This record gives sequence, structure tokens and C-alpha cells, in this order.
Amino acid sequence: MPNPLGLITLLTDFGDRDTFVASMKGVILTINPQATLVDLSHHVPAHSIEAAAYLLNSCYRHFPEGTVHVAVVDPGVGSARRPLLVNTTRYCFLGPDNGLFSHIFDQEDKVEVRTIESNQYRLRSVGHTFDGRDLFAPSAAWLTKGALPSSFGRVIHDPIVLPIVEPRKQGDSLLGRIVHVDRFGNLISNLTPQHMQEFRSCTGRTEVLLQIAGHTIVGLVACYSEGLNDGLAALINSNGRVEVFVNGKSAAQHLRAGVGVEISLR
Amino acid sequence: MPNPLGLITLLTDFGDRDTFVASMKGVILTINPQATLVDLSHHVPAHSIEAAAYLLNSCYRHFPEGTVHVAVVDPGVGSARRPLLVNTTRYCFLGPDNGLFSHIFDQEDKVEVRTIESNQYRLRSVGHTFDGRDLFAPSAAWLTKGALPSSFGRVIHDPIVLPIVEPRKQGDSLLGRIVHVDRFGNLISNLTPQHMQEFRSCTGRTEVLLQIAGHTIVGLVACYSEGLNDGLAALINSNGRVEVFVNGKSAAQHLRAGVGVEISLR
Amino acid sequence: MPNPLGLITLLTDFGDRDTFVASMKGVILTINPQATLVDLSHHVPAHSIEAAAYLLNSCYRHFPEGTVHVAVVDPGVGSARRPLLVNTTRYCFLGPDNGLFSHIFDQEDKVEVRTIESNQYRLRSVGHTFDGRDLFAPSAAWLTKGALPSSFGRVIHDPIVLPIVEPRKQGDSLLGRIVHVDRFGNLISNLTPQHMQEFRSCTGRTEVLLQIAGHTIVGLVACYSEGLNDGLAALINSNGRVEVFVNGKSAAQHLRAGVGVEISLR
Repeated sequence: MPNPLGLITLLTDFGDRDTFVASMKGVILTINPQATLVDLSHHVPAHSIEAAAYLLNSCYRHFPEGTVHVAVVDPGVGSARRPLLVNTTRYCFLGPDNGLFSHIFDQEDKVEVRTIESNQYRLRSVGHTFDGRDLFAPSAAWLTKGALPSSFGRVIHDPIVLPIVEPRKQGDSLLGRIVHVDRFGNLISNLTPQHMQEFRSCTGRTEVLLQIAGHTIVGLVACYSEGLNDGLAALINSNGRVEVFVNGKSAAQHLRAGVGVEISLR
Repeated sequence: MPNPLGLITLLTDFGDRDTFVASMKGVILTINPQATLVDLSHHVPAHSIEAAAYLLNSCYRHFPEGTVHVAVVDPGVGSARRPLLVNTTRYCFLGPDNGLFSHIFDQEDKVEVRTIESNQYRLRSVGHTFDGRDLFAPSAAWLTKGALPSSFGRVIHDPIVLPIVEPRKQGDSLLGRIVHVDRFGNLISNLTPQHMQEFRSCTGRTEVLLQIAGHTIVGLVACYSEGLNDGLAALINSNGRVEVFVNGKSAAQHLRAGVGVEISLR
Repeated sequence: MPNPLGLITLLTDFGDRDTFVASMKGVILTINPQATLVDLSHHVPAHSIEAAAYLLNSCYRHFPEGTVHVAVVDPGVGSARRPLLVNTTRYCFLGPDNGLFSHIFDQEDKVEVRTIESNQYRLRSVGHTFDGRDLFAPSAAWLTKGALPSSFGRVIHDPIVLPIVEPRKQGDSLLGRIVHVDRFGNLISNLTPQHMQEFRSCTGRTEVLLQIAGHTIVGLVACYSEGLNDGLAALINSNGRVEVFVNGKSAAQHLRAGVGVEISLR
């Protein structure tokens, strides 16, 4: 998996008020001045592993093969929780063993998970609170310089995996959930076009009804501007999920709904 | 218009909580790993085409010739609204046909506007909600790799242009407006040194009075620290606009004033 | 001090809603298209020189030798305040003479401070409100292209230095202060492991007590996850400071405490 570009992405809950992210970048560029750094997001809600796992999954596959994705939402930093290096046929991932990579394990081929045991890539520094800077950043930089995954530590087979909530049947309905609210207030569910297709095949219906927070949406539209009259509407979004929206407004505010709310297909 | 650097700027209303911007960057770097990416801002108020047009105009000309500026504030994404490629003698611009480029049309030379009709640069992907990732990002990347503008689509002559509000005379006064409030709470107007000059010539006055929200400001100062006593003051700012400020504080809060408020020159 | 990478960092209070930062980057890339730009933070509280000095100090040393650090929190822009170029054995710093570089003066070797007097690096532009774009950005770019520090202006010996508040003894105690609150609500003090060590030696005690806002913390833990039961705890953080935290929560909210609050070692 060559990475001549030295492309490294960073996903954290470090925000933008401090210099945590900048410190990681400085460490990387000290080791590999040719590295190219891209921020995925640094606004994961503090300590939210689920949100980070969702965000990583929403964009990692748009990067070139060989990209090293570093994800640091790490409430257990400094404890016995294991640091991980995950290799797939297309990417490397670095981060703590807390479930961050659950979607990767589910979707990528030939996943090899190692725990980072070697100290050769770790910065010698005070404190045990910032593996993002002291372990994951330098490890990413050395990977782009050709360090072999096997030099980091042994393969493990028991990384922590978060339960991925799949829609389930209940009587006539398929029950999904809202898994993310984006900056526009759009409500993104775990329902996919495949779920809709299967549901139509099983029930023989052509028109689908979506129910969420006491409201009913009839059918799907193709784009936001087809959602008329300030009313609720739904579409298949750019990640292949059923998304509930209000054209030009926030559906989350309109429904007072957020992550975890049920959405059912009838 | 050579662009050996592959310099691409991004202006959106995508915010920083999601991975919309990161997805665009991943797509660009997959096509052109040598591209250099600069964020203009991703904090345009959601769906505000006017604000995006203002922000683009406030900085595009500080970039090197050949830069590709991508602007995606696109409430009509997926509908019949046309995607545009705008070429000028110095820059390329990519974005939806909704008025985003109004200031560019006004200020740049030899503006050629094309609608992107070819599908060769578009990603094949689900959903019709994210042309930023699926059309504008790859188009920008291919432009930096030498794709010819003519290969994107035909020239059009009727792009949407927002009305640019110019100051107007009313009796003894010249009536301007606040067009932007910056992060410091400074109130930026559409009055320029040229307007002040003409006004002085016409009226024969040397001292100018500015009136805003019931307050009067006498004359201009040269820099923020000349605005004394927590009082209102005004200066010519770095973009050549008359700007109302309170030294070290927010003039917007002080006056409870924002975009659209009148400012008159007497 | 070679800088073949053209690495330039930017620290400002410009926020992310405007295009101030983008304008600086455009200017730099126009002069040196090979420059590599890293954001330290742009969310310094408006006009807060102390906060900027703290943030710069928290990360500048993680960057490779030769890096040019540009810091622009500059309420006095356009006035008689001097623009500075600071050279040390490892880095260059550019910014206004207002105390921003106080920690640098304290910690770096062979510090040479110059005032920028030459106009050869300044952009000709309207207004006197944006030296970040018009003076510091182009100066940084030209430095990475090999411009000699001596060509910027003469050496001065009286730059403004902010008082750095050090802990002081009071009876049996050592009185420190909170100097920063990070995005997690962790309270970072000016107490270091050296202070703790000296205190233990002087007093002959092995167990230390920390008192802050009427609460007592017994001893230090090694990492956040050792802070149990939603209670206050303290550790040595990644910058070698005593930091007060509540595991998974905000200590700042828990104690209603912020910058300036006393923390004493008993």
C-alpha cells in the first residue's frame, strides 16, 4: 500500500480553541516534511466514540488508497486501553481500541488489527494524556515513511466493536433510527435504499410511508428543493441513507428530534 | 492559465461538525494528489448565497493566478439549477448558478461562463444532494490536471446575478448599507473612499458625518486604536470599505445593528 | 536555519466566519507557492494577547526547525506599535510587539528581536487594519524564500514582555493559578512537576494536597480514566502542567472556575 503523497487525515474531538491538533501536525511534519494533512473534523462531541465512528465511516472511502487515517477520541488515554494499527487492503487506521473502527471492521476487506507495543515510534514526553501527539501522530508519520505494520506490534483478534444498530422488523413496519444530525439539521437514519427495496418486495407496496416523531412522510423526493411548503420530506442522501429534512430549515428543530429517535417504514 | 501548484480554494456553508468538506478534499486528492487545498470559510450561514458572494469577493483576488475557486452554497442542489464553470483572465470558479459569482461577473475581465453538461467529471454516486463532492470537487481537480474548460460544457450568457446594492443619493446624504458583520462585531458598509471623495467634491465639505442607528460619527480615523473612549468610530478597512467599530468591542452589539442597516454620509 | 519545506504556522483571533485567514494564505502562496501552511488556532478570544501567548507556547516547539510562526492578535494594528521579527536558534516568529512572544523570550536560546522597518515586503494596499495580510504574511513568505532577517530592520532590545505569573510561597502553601481552560473544561495551572518536587523536598511531605475553589484534591493520578466517581482529580498533563479535571466532564463547569482562579499546593 504505497503512500508517496504521505496523506494523513485527522479526526478528533479536540475542537479548534486549543493547539492539540496543531501539535499533532507539528510532530508529523517533523518526521515527514512531505506529509499532506487533511482534517476530517475536530468537532466530534467530546468523548463521543459513536459519533467519531459515524463520521469516519462517512468519508474515509473518498480518500486515495494508502491514506493513513488517524482517529483520536480517546477518553481512556494513558490507561490499559490498547492503541491500534488497523490495515486493510486500501487504508491504514490509527487510534485507540474503543470501538472507533467498528464500521471499518464491518466494511473493509482483509482487515488486520495490531496493537502498538513497540516504543520506537512514541515521543518521549511528559504526561500520559496525549497519545494523539505522542503516539498516533508519529506512528502515522513513520508509516508514510515506509515503517512496516509488523514493526508496531502483534496482530490481535479481539478489538472492541460497538454494536451497529440495524433496522428491525416489527409487524408491518421496519423500525430504523436517526444516527446523525448534520449541521443543517437534517436527520440521517440507518435506513438504506436496500431496506426500502426489500420492504417493497416483502409487502408488495409501491408507495412507502415514513413515520417519525408523530409525523408521516409519503414517499421520497430526489433533492432538497423538491421539499415544499416548509414541510417534512425525505430523500436518499449522498451516503445512501434515508434522510429527513425541511427545505431550507432544520428538521431537527422542526421535530425536536435527534440521534436515537425512531423512524419507521410502513 | 497554468496552475502547476494545483491550488484549489473551498468556500461552503458546510460547517465543521460534519465531513462534507473532508469528502470533497478526499475526492480532489484522489484525482490530483499534488493539489494544494485552502479553506476560504465553511461557516457561511446555511443557504446564504449573499453572504457567500460577499466572502468570496473579500479574498479571491489575494490568490495566485490560476487558482481554482470552488464555492458551494447550493440549496438547489439536484434540481434543474445549472452547475457553472466561470473563467476569467486570472481564475477559474466552480459552483452552482444561483448568484454566488455576482461580484466576480462585476469585477473580473473577460468572464466566460459555461454550464457543466458533460458527465465525464462527475462521480457516479448515490443521491443527488452533494454536487460539492460529486461534481464540483472532481471538476476542480481535473481542471488543475489540464482539463479544458470547453470540455465541460457550452458557454451561456444568462447566469443568475444578484443585485449588488450600491449607495444612493437622498437629498444631502448618500445612503449606504451594512453588508457584513465580521467576527469582531465590526460593521462593514458598501461605502468606499471613492464615494467619500465624490461626496466631498459635490458638497464642498471637508468633514464628513456618518449616521448609523441614530448615532453620529464625525470623520474617519486611521486605525482601531484611534477609536477612543469605548465610542463609535469609523475607518477605511483593508478591503477599501467604510467600517464602523468600537475599539476592543463589538459595534454590532453596541448598536444592536447588523447586515442591512442603513449608514448615511452627510 | 534552512526551511526548504516553507513551513509557516498561523495563530490569530480571526475566527472562521470571515476570510481574514484565507487572505493571508493567498498572499503567502502567491509569493511562495511551495509553502506549507498549518493553522495553530484562529479561535484566540478576540484581542487576548495573553491567551495567544499561552497557545503559541503550548505548541511551537513541536514543529520542525526553521518553521516560521506567524502570530497575529493585534489590537494596535496601524498605530505606532512595532511589527517584530524574532529569530531564535530554531525558529522565526512574526507578529506585533505587544507581548505575544513573552514565553518565547523566556524559553528560547539566542533570541534576536528586530523591528520590521523596511517596506519592501509590505503589500501596497488600502487601509491600515490588516497587517496580518499586508505585512506579516508576505514577510513570512519571503523568509521561507531566503530573505535575510537583517533586511527587515534593526535589532531592538526593548520588546514588550508580559509578566509571566509564577507560583509563589505563602506560609505552608505554594499558590499557583489557572492559566488556561481547554475545550474539555480541564483547568490547566502554572504548577509544574518541578514545583511539586521542590515543595515535597522543602516540606518533607510525600502526599500533596491541591486546593481549588474550596475543594481539596489528594495526590495526582496518571490519566483521566483514573479520575473516578465524577469527582475532581489532578494529573500532570502533556505540557508538564498540573491539570484539574473531572473524568468525562468539565471541571470548569463543575467548579465554576476559569482562568485566574487560585490553586494551592499544601
